[in-house]
Amino acid sequence: MSFKLHSQLEKDTIEVSDLNLCKVLLMNNALYPWLILVPMKPDLKEITDLSPEDYSLMMEEVNNMCKKMQEIFSPDKMNVATLGNVVPQLHIHIIARFEKDQAWPNPVWGQASEEYSEETKTLLSEKLKLLAK
Amino acid sequence: MSFKLHSQLEKDTIEVSDLNLCKVLLMNNALYPWLILVPMKPDLKEITDLSPEDYSLMMEEVNNMCKKMQEIFSPDKMNVATLGNVVPQLHIHIIARFEKDQAWPNPVWGQASEEYSEETKTLLSEKLKLLAK
Repeated sequence: MSFKLHSQLEKDTIEVSDLNLCKVLLMNNALYPWLILVPMKPDLKEITDLSPEDYSLMMEEVNNMCKKMQEIFSPDKMNVATLGNVVPQLHIHIIARFEKDQAWPNPVWGQASEEYSEETKTLLSEKLKLLAK
Repeated sequence: MSFKLHSQLEKDTIEVSDLNLCKVLLMNNALYPWLILVPMKPDLKEITDLSPEDYSLMMEEVNNMCKKMQEIFSPDKMNVATLGNVVPQLHIHIIARFEKDQAWPNPVWGQASEEYSEETKTLLSEKLKLLAK
């Protein structure tokens, strides 16, 4: 079976780019700079489902994208998490958090959401596309 | 400066064991099987603060402890996260989640908490200590 992005992730995000292993998505929520990395292999649910090589590669890509987010947004804290209680396809959240953001110091899941304007969406995903290279 | 466990983590958890890099703690919350891994190096806040070698080692220890939790508890889903919005010392949550647990499908942070009985605490931390070897 080949990889297919889960429909909920497709609905909630904007595609940024494909790394070697992971698809990089921008969460369509203007309240927090929020990336989602999805390893492009079928039938993954847990980090322990990955081969040792893919696990190392995924964690390297997570670290790199985390650094890029720090460079672009200078956040007070990065939140990195894989939950998957609702969407079972393995995906990693990388979220730039600010002491002044709406949910601080709580996690962002289940909190308010606000879609990007078309203009911001285009600008931000172009910027992230460049930096993901 | 040498490593010192943050006082809040010390207060909320039970020490299980020390791996090569990380201290393994059991969250004193009987509602969810919940480990916390803390790299025993001073002044770490973000995953990007670790050297590449320590980052690899930490993620290997996270993966191993995640597997152990799956073996012991057979959860419906593992939640793995580093937030640190409240306690700034770098620490990774590894939580075994069940569709019947109190917070499902929401994340566990900020939800109800219930301390272990002394008996369960001793039994569980002994069991985890053996498995962390």
